[in-house]
Order: sequence, then C-alpha cells, then structure tokens
Amino acid sequence: MILVLKKGADENKVESLKQQLKDMGLGLHLSDGANASLIGLIGDTTEVDAEWLGALDVVESVKRIKEPYKKANKDMHPNDTVIDVAGRKIGGGHFQVIAGPCSIESREQMTEVAEDVKMAGAGLLRGGAFKPRTSPYSFQGLENEGMQMLLEAKKATGLPIVTEIMSAEHLPLFEDVDVIQVGTRNMQNFQLLKELGKVDKPILLKRGMANTLEELLMSAEYIMAGGNEKVILCERGIRTFETSMRNTLDISAIPMLKSKTHLPVIVDPSHAAGIRFMVEPLTMAAIAAGADGVMIEVHNNPEKALCDGKQSLTPESFAELMKKVRKTTEFFQKEM
Amino acid sequence: MILVLKKGADENKVESLKQQLKDMGLGLHLSDGANASLIGLIGDTTEVDAEWLGALDVVESVKRIKEPYKKANKDMHPNDTVIDVAGRKIGGGHFQVIAGPCSIESREQMTEVAEDVKMAGAGLLRGGAFKPRTSPYSFQGLENEGMQMLLEAKKATGLPIVTEIMSAEHLPLFEDVDVIQVGTRNMQNFQLLKELGKVDKPILLKRGMANTLEELLMSAEYIMAGGNEKVILCERGIRTFETSMRNTLDISAIPMLKSKTHLPVIVDPSHAAGIRFMVEPLTMAAIAAGADGVMIEVHNNPEKALCDGKQSLTPESFAELMKKVRKTTEFFQKEM
Amino acid sequence: MILVLKKGADENKVESLKQQLKDMGLGLHLSDGANASLIGLIGDTTEVDAEWLGALDVVESVKRIKEPYKKANKDMHPNDTVIDVAGRKIGGGHFQVIAGPCSIESREQMTEVAEDVKMAGAGLLRGGAFKPRTSPYSFQGLENEGMQMLLEAKKATGLPIVTEIMSAEHLPLFEDVDVIQVGTRNMQNFQLLKELGKVDKPILLKRGMANTLEELLMSAEYIMAGGNEKVILCERGIRTFETSMRNTLDISAIPMLKSKTHLPVIVDPSHAAGIRFMVEPLTMAAIAAGADGVMIEVHNNPEKALCDGKQSLTPESFAELMKKVRKTTEFFQKEM
Amino acid sequence: MILVLKKGADENKVESLKQQLKDMGLGLHLSDGANASLIGLIGDTTEVDAEWLGALDVVESVKRIKEPYKKANKDMHPNDTVIDVAGRKIGGGHFQVIAGPCSIESREQMTEVAEDVKMAGAGLLRGGAFKPRTSPYSFQGLENEGMQMLLEAKKATGLPIVTEIMSAEHLPLFEDVDVIQVGTRNMQNFQLLKELGKVDKPILLKRGMANTLEELLMSAEYIMAGGNEKVILCERGIRTFETSMRNTLDISAIPMLKSKTHLPVIVDPSHAAGIRFMVEPLTMAAIAAGADGVMIEVHNNPEKALCDGKQSLTPESFAELMKKVRKTTEFFQKEM
Repeated sequence: MILVLKKGADENKVESLKQQLKDMGLGLHLSDGANASLIGLIGDTTEVDAEWLGALDVVESVKRIKEPYKKANKDMHPNDTVIDVAGRKIGGGHFQVIAGPCSIESREQMTEVAEDVKMAGAGLLRGGAFKPRTSPYSFQGLENEGMQMLLEAKKATGLPIVTEIMSAEHLPLFEDVDVIQVGTRNMQNFQLLKELGKVDKPILLKRGMANTLEELLMSAEYIMAGGNEKVILCERGIRTFETSMRNTLDISAIPMLKSKTHLPVIVDPSHAAGIRFMVEPLTMAAIAAGADGVMIEVHNNPEKALCDGKQSLTPESFAELMKKVRKTTEFFQKEM
Repeated sequence: MILVLKKGADENKVESLKQQLKDMGLGLHLSDGANASLIGLIGDTTEVDAEWLGALDVVESVKRIKEPYKKANKDMHPNDTVIDVAGRKIGGGHFQVIAGPCSIESREQMTEVAEDVKMAGAGLLRGGAFKPRTSPYSFQGLENEGMQMLLEAKKATGLPIVTEIMSAEHLPLFEDVDVIQVGTRNMQNFQLLKELGKVDKPILLKRGMANTLEELLMSAEYIMAGGNEKVILCERGIRTFETSMRNTLDISAIPMLKSKTHLPVIVDPSHAAGIRFMVEPLTMAAIAAGADGVMIEVHNNPEKALCDGKQSLTPESFAELMKKVRKTTEFFQKEM
Repeated sequence: MILVLKKGADENKVESLKQQLKDMGLGLHLSDGANASLIGLIGDTTEVDAEWLGALDVVESVKRIKEPYKKANKDMHPNDTVIDVAGRKIGGGHFQVIAGPCSIESREQMTEVAEDVKMAGAGLLRGGAFKPRTSPYSFQGLENEGMQMLLEAKKATGLPIVTEIMSAEHLPLFEDVDVIQVGTRNMQNFQLLKELGKVDKPILLKRGMANTLEELLMSAEYIMAGGNEKVILCERGIRTFETSMRNTLDISAIPMLKSKTHLPVIVDPSHAAGIRFMVEPLTMAAIAAGADGVMIEVHNNPEKALCDGKQSLTPESFAELMKKVRKTTEFFQKEM
Repeated sequence: MILVLKKGADENKVESLKQQLKDMGLGLHLSDGANASLIGLIGDTTEVDAEWLGALDVVESVKRIKEPYKKANKDMHPNDTVIDVAGRKIGGGHFQVIAGPCSIESREQMTEVAEDVKMAGAGLLRGGAFKPRTSPYSFQGLENEGMQMLLEAKKATGLPIVTEIMSAEHLPLFEDVDVIQVGTRNMQNFQLLKELGKVDKPILLKRGMANTLEELLMSAEYIMAGGNEKVILCERGIRTFETSMRNTLDISAIPMLKSKTHLPVIVDPSHAAGIRFMVEPLTMAAIAAGADGVMIEVHNNPEKALCDGKQSLTPESFAELMKKVRKTTEFFQKEM
C-alpha cells in the first residue's frame, strides 16, 4: 500500500502517522518527489483500512498494491481448490452441471424434473424453496414445504441438491442440503455470510448484479475467514445500460477470477440473459472460457412456471444441450 | 398491460390464454394489426406476473402501462405522506436534517457528537452500531454495546435516533429506536423487508446502489404491503462507470420519485460522493431539487473515525453547513 | 407501435392526432380500457418518430413493437450476409481472423508482423495509421506515412487490409484499403457513417463502448440506407462499473445480434479486456458463442509498442493461438 | 507516477527501463518492499504513456499520482477562467442562460423563439442546424439553410448564438457563430477537437454520455493544446442502468470539475432527464451545486417540435423559470 502525502502536509502530523503505522507492525519506505511525497507500507496490509488512511488530513490518496483478501487469494494457495459434493467434483479440471427448476412448485413437478435432469446427465439438482422476488405480489416460493419436496427428489434420484438461503434463521432447514446458494441480492448480506462461515457445507456464492470481482472475492473471504473454505463462485450476469437482455454475462470474469483465486468458478447462463435461446451459446462460451460448471434452469412446462419460465429449458432441450456439453467439455479437456 | 402475440401463434393456445386471463377477473381488449396482434388487459394488473406472461409460447412481449406498485403509488394516495418522528415531521413541505457519526465508536464520541449536532440544529441523530463492511477485516461496529451508547445519547439530548438494521433477528434491540434504517446492500433483502412490514416504526429505506427507482418503490411496497406505511425513501448515490467519486448522486431521483409516490424522499450526500468537500454543494442541490431532508455524517475527529472518515464533517463545519441549510430551505419554502 | 393516451386527454386533440396518423398512411386500432386508452399503429412505422409522438400533450407513453431498422433486420433478409474480402469470406458459417499491430510504427515492424501473422494463418491484416487517443500527448499514429507502410505490407503478403478511418476527409487515402474500420468512439459519428454509405467497400463497425445493440444496428442502418450493405459488426467490450479489466466483453451480444440481423458479427478480444492473458479464453468464448471472426492485436515487440502493448500478443503466442482457433472453429463447424 | 515491479523481475530489464526513464528527463525514486518493488517517477509525467509502461514485462501495474492534463488543470491556473461571449460572461461568478429550440425548423419558429427567450432574459441563443440522430430516418436538421435562419435570429435579437458542429468540414459555415458546441457523441472525435484547437472562438464541450470526468478534461486539453483555451464544459447526463429517465444528471460533476479545473462548467437539464417537468428542479439543483450556466430547450410549439419536443419548455413556462433562475442565482451569489 502506498500513501501519497499532501503537498505541504504538517510535518508533526506526518511523523505521528509514521509512528502509528510502525506500531501496527508495518515497515515504511519513504520517497520524496518534486510533486509528491510517498510512504510505502511494507508487510501484511490486509487489515489496514485504506478508507481510514484516505481520510487523514495529510494524505492525498492511497494506492493498493496487494489485493485485500488472503484466504481467497491464489498467491497464498496456488493450487486450484476442488470441491467434492457427494462425489461430484467441481474445480481443478472437473466440470459439473447443476440443473432444475427456478422455483419448486409441486411434488410432481420437482420429482419429474429431477428424474429428467438426472437421466440427461446433470451432476447436481437445483430448485428454489425461498425465492427473492422484486414484487411482494409475485409468488414467493413454497418455503418449508418446497424444501421437503426437494429433499424427496434428492432421495428419489440420489442427486445432491443446491438451494438458496435468504436468511440465517432458516439454516436449520438446510441440514440435508448439499450446497447452500447465496443469491445475487444477498452477496453483501454480511450477517448471512458470517453465519455461513460456521457451516461445514459448500457455499455457492453468486456475484451481486452490480458488484466488482474484488467485492465478490471479499464476500468469499467473509465465509472463509469464518472457517468455511468451500466456496464456489458464480458469475450470473451484471447490470449494465443494455436493455435487450436481462443482464450482461461477464464472460471475462472467468479468466480474471481464475488468475486471482484458487476457488472454482461456475456460470449461470439462464439468469444472465433471461432468454431461452441464449442458454446454449452462453453455456458453450462459459466452457470455452474455462468455467468449472454451469447452472441451468429446466422446467417440465416452462409456460406454467411460476417464476422465470422465459429462460427455462424443457427436459427435451436440456437433454440436447447436455449432449453438446459433454462433447464440448471433452474438447476443452475438462472432466465431467 | 398489453400482450403482443407472436405472428402465427397457435389459435387454441391463444384462446386458452384468453380464458385464463378472464378467469383472473381481467377484461380483454383485442387488436389485430398487419404486424402484430395485441391483447390489452383491463383491470387491476398489479398482481399479474409479467414474467410469467412473457414466457408463454404465444406471447412475443409484454408491455406494462401501469406501475406495478399500489400502496406506494401517488395515484392511489395523491397527498404527500408526512412522517412524524417524535414531533419532527418529514415530507409534505417539512425538511429534516439527520446527523451523526457513520459508526458508533465510544460513549464519549457518541455523546459529544450528539450534543454538537443538536446544538447546530439537527432534528434527528444517526449512528451505526451494526456496520456492513466490504472486508471481513474492517471494523464491524460495536453492535449491542454501540446500541446502548446511542440510546444514552438519545436520552441525553432528547433527539430521536436513526440506526441501521442488518438482520431481522436484531429487531428486539431496536425497541427504543425511532427510525430503522435499511442500508443500500439490503434494499432487496426481502426477508428483512417483510419483517419490517410488521413493525410500527418509520423505516428509512436506502436505494440499492444499482437499483432502479421502480425497484426502490417495489421494496417500499414490500414494507407497506405488510402493514407499515411509514417509509422514507433515501437516494444515496448509484454505481456508474465514473471513478473520481465513490458513487454518482442521482439528483433526478428526487423529482422523479415525487411524481410517482407520496412517500418522503431524502438524500445522503455524505455517502453519495464519499468526499468531504462535496457534502455542501450536494446538500444545496438536494434542497433545490425538492428533497424532504438530508442525512449527514459528522464526527468529532474525522481522522480517527473507524469508518468513512473521508466524508465526515467536523462539528464546526457541520454548524456552518446548518446555517446555510436553514437559509436555503427557507428560500425554497420548506419548513425546518 | 402503440400510443398510450393520457387519462382525460382532450378529445379534439386526440381526433386531430388520429387524422395526422392516417395521413401518414398508417392504419389505426383503437382500444379503450378502464385505466388507459390505446392507439395501435398498423403499417410501416420505421419512419415514425417515437420521440415526437411521446412529446404530444395527449400521449402518456409510446411502446415500440417492431425494431426501428429495416435493412439490417433479419426479418427482411432471413439469410445471413456473407461478405467477401478478396476471397476471404466472413459470415454465414465462414470465420476469419484479422490480426496485426494496434498502430503502425515503422516499415520494419509492419512488414515483419504482416509476414508473421500470414504465416500463422491470419486471413486479413490490421494496422492503425490514424489512432484515436484519450490524451493529446500520446502517440497519434503515423497517418499518411503509416498508410503507405500498411499498403506495402499488403503488397508483400497479399493479405487484404483493415484500417480505421477517423474523418471522412481522409477517404481518398483509403482507396486501396480492403475493409474500412469505424472505431468505438465514432460509432455515432453520423456524418462519417453517411459518407461510408456511399463507398463500395466493407465497413467494420465497432460498437460504441456505451451503446446498446439497437443503437449499433441503427448505425449500421445509416451506412446501409446510403447504399452500402456490406457492414461487419464488431463487439469490443462495453463500459461498466467493473474496474479490473478495461472493458466488459458482452459475449451475449453475439447470439442476440444474430437473432436480429443478417450481418456478420465479429469480436475484438484484445480491446475487450486489455490484458494479454485474457485474449485466448475470450477468443475461445467468442467462437463458442457463434462469432464470425475475431480481431487480434499482434506486435513483434509488445513492450516497445507505442499503443496498447499491454494486450498485444507476440508472433509466437499468436501462432500458438491460431492452432487452437483452427481446431476450435472446426469443432464448432465454422469454415476458416 | 509509480511503477510497481513484478516479483522476480529480470534485473537487466529493470536496469534498462530505469535508463530509458532517465533519458526522458525523469528523476527516479526506488523503494524495495517485501511484497513489491516500486519506482517513483519525478518530474513532468503528463507525456509519459502509462499504457506503454503497463505493458512492460517487468511492470506489474502503474499508479498515476498527478492528473494527465496540464492546461485544463487548476493547479497550473488557480483562478477561474471567465469566458466573454459578446459581453456575456461565463465562469468566475458569472452565470448565463442559453436557450432556444433543439433544432431549427423554420424562419418563423427560430425568430419567434429567439424573441421570446430574449424577452424572458436569456443571455445566449441556441438552435441546431446539424442534428445527430440515432436513426437515419429521423429529421437530420436543416443544415446550411438552418444556419442562415439562426444568423438572422441573431441579427434580429442581438443575442450571441451557440450551435453544434458535427464535422470540421463545416467550419466555414460557423464564421459568425459565437460559441461552437461539440455534442456528446463527438466528445472523443479527436480529429474535430484538433481542428477546434485552431479556432479563435469559445467551444462548448459536452460530456460524452459514458465518459469519465478525466476523459472530459482530456478532450478539453486537446482543444487547449491546439491553442484555443476558451473551453466551456457541459454536464448533460450520463448513461446508467436507470430506465425511467433518458440519462442520469451527474450533479456531483459540478463541484468535482471545479476542484480540478479553472474552466467554466454549465449544465443541460433538458437533455439530462429528457422530460419537461424535470427541467425546473434540475436547473435549481445545478445553480445550487455551483454551475456557471444552464442550457435549456424552448420551443414555441413543443408538440410540433421535430426533435426532443418531450423536454422542451414553452416560451411561457421558460419565462416563469427565468424568474426563479434570477432569484436563485442571486440567492447563491452568482451574477447574471
């Protein structure tokens, strides 16, 4: 971290700042230029608060050199993390397809779709019991009842399950859930992240729709700092000015995240575009760019789906897609 | 709401859709053009799910005519809502200044700042006990202990208090809080909004940093639909490509929201720009554009502030600002 | 196009509006609902100005049903356009790699890179003689002199050339250029687009960094309306809040554009991310998502490049990339 | 400027880089930390290409300390620039209202509006002869003919005129124009900016709808570097995710620009929101935030306007607005 001092900064204040920094165990490197005087901080600056430094009267600006996360950082942990969910591996060359309906609507729907996606070759089953909806008048999920249906589908098919949590209070309901999903609107619900740091289950952390990759990694760090290092990152489209699609899939997030972290990175092409015909090309692009998995919405009757039907695949088109996914992951040398 | 049907849509499916819509109590208006056939829906469409309609095989697109919120809608409630907090009125021509430190750091700091902002003329006192921070390694707030200090400052000064909630579990701690704040990262924490709908206290709802004004109003609707109609909206800057400031204050949100809703609208100039020297011009702009209040960070020693010191005013500069605020609200005919 | 009339709109004004619309040759379809009265416009509305209608006193809002472009529209021209540049085909299943330095710096550099990219298998050669640079103090390109060097490289290698135009005044210099590029900052330089509509050469039109896909197609329409239908669209990354990369590649633009237009769509992975190590994964993603080509920066000495060296490949790494491009296009059944 | 070197960077390469930097007349300040080695550059770095440095093999990243513009920089020129247009002063405490129709449509319209805005107290007259329109099928302006009408209106009223240029080729037509406007889509049309640097007239430079404030200042620098230091900056709304308004007025741009440059800053509230009822509150906000002027669309018959009628004021409502502008500028101690 480098502090740029203000021109003509009060010398006593600068001295007292230097002492404070030394007291924090940091080494200092000083540099005086014609235009600016700098202080370089040497040592572990992860816990140094850049905002606090930036507020000081004598400091013009603060420049970070090192990323502000440790446990999620590839530097500290050069080998890719492989997360094992009941035998299904994600990361480090292993690719998984997570599939199922956006929301759980009935016992029949859930079981039917579960059987269908299993037959087509999905590795994990998804389904939402708690649904974050923009309008209070939209269907909010079957909640506990939905969770029971999902657990029955898990039992029937043997597929491990992924489902979204909206509040730490609901944690007891997630005991038999294999992967707990944090949705895009909760990526910075730090209270929830802290609780998930105490859980011994993989967490699928979706990027907030207007959050930077650094913020995503900081949210992963919240979970990891609590003791749970099994975090799967998920790119699901960001909010931009473009209006022809629901969100803009940030495909570059895959190689960029992989250069910065050892955690697996998957993609949700269904939510990214929000339109059925784009699911296939975006899935292919995700594999080509190096993703460790995809998460795809499948509904046995998309036209009757109580949520996000517009982007759901039918079981038939999902089975077609899976054939292509198998060939393409093989071509790009990922194991499925 | 208007449904644009696909060219050559299956007639049986269209007939069955029409029947379904009639069964929902809606009137239909049909229109066949050379390029498109339309169905206009007549009646209350607030609870019609536009996404579900858009997913239907026979539907090309869906166009909303009416806003999807009811209780927050100015149409339903043409007079401005005035919210009374222990005698301090917000909205309908009444202007309030909410001031205090970003985070509560000690008994001395809290009491001192409280006395200072009271003397300068602030109407409400703010202070954060629970702090949402991007990094798990940053100061997270004094939590319960901080809340006690805030309550003491309330007692000492008689100022009603505003403080942020991060989880519905903490609600019991908020019993003596006058206004509960929902932060930008929780604007779509629907679980929390639902709980706040059952509370009998004003809620200060901050706009998410990448949420549209319609989404802000839908989040207000969550609280109002639960029975609590005392919602204060707060514009606090949105996320854009501009990098010289922390956020971009959306000043147009004030007149736009006021054309759509009867709820009061306040502005947080401290978080919007994140830089001290911009607090005054943005406060003046907010008053000029018609805001019903501002929320300003004040710290007795901004350089030692454990959070957001960069944007905090000293008690002296806050007192100076208050003089201008009084003159300017008077000029723009707001009552303070 | 649908006009939503204001509640209680003056009847005489509405009648006069209807007459005006009929006089424009449009059929009208009227619909009166409890909440809104609508007028549907039947016929060719491409030239109807939605802004003008939206400004009328009696009109609440205007909803477009049909896209506002004709010649670029897939509806009017269902078969993919294949553009032939000196025997190199782009579009309709044909894939091309355009490669070369960002800016032309010397005769040696240009010839050397040209020979290298030819040997590696590039189909077209790029190089910038006129460079749009943010700072007036940065290298602005060798202009006429650079153009001569590029033409020599064309002669030496036989590769057709692509180069950027910054002003219609320079058109005479482009006589022997095979494809004229319009850069991202000029996508809405309508004066330039009009002039290019009169030229009989393919135009490579880059998307503005904050322009919607509809605006991109409208800019293509400017060129096509002038008589030049040989337009190649290029996605090169858009401006978002993300700061770890120069721009955010909008990979979804490929399938979305292909659903709306018959024009070929290529991708510039070098400018999109602005970082060397991301060129390969983004190129793979572009092929997988259905692009008709890519445009890649290659420099014989990226560290000495006078512009954008950070994202340039060396001839060696470009040759490696080309091997993968050949295999991958074959896998995705594109002809190269 | 600070260079952060890569860990384990080749020492010979680093030495050669240092020599190169010294050869450019820069002083170097070296600093070796546990995590990073830094080189601080001392001297005038305006012409040092940060991109070129960032591309070097041994360089991890480059951090700017000083702004990359000189002539526009407040540091170099602490007093506010006052621009005098035929006796009307802009900047340094002087406030001007520029008013007139978006596009010039007929002799009668132009003259009538000119008389009206003069009577209401506008200081300068605007009107567009060349119009940048998204669609090639929209009205493109009366061009030369329109320019004649504008000049006649200038003659009739004595008001200095402001009008937009779309190509340097048209410069001869602008001989009697008082202020030449560069539109938002041409802010980075560097060819045009260079030509305007040779002109001896004030240039009104509008911010590009997705350009940072630094880029705006760099575009001003293009004009100033050419010798023309009379540049007026104009904030006119930026492109964001918000859809209820055409653009988001960046009100913070005013104090931020004023902290960085001595050039005057005006605001275009008509284009910012694109809706008539928002012109007044945004004008008030602009004055309150410290703007040096506003630019407002007025049309004698907004419903018949061939462009942007939705946001135009009638002469009557403009006259009402002017009364408030006079009182408000007086309140905020600006001279009109």
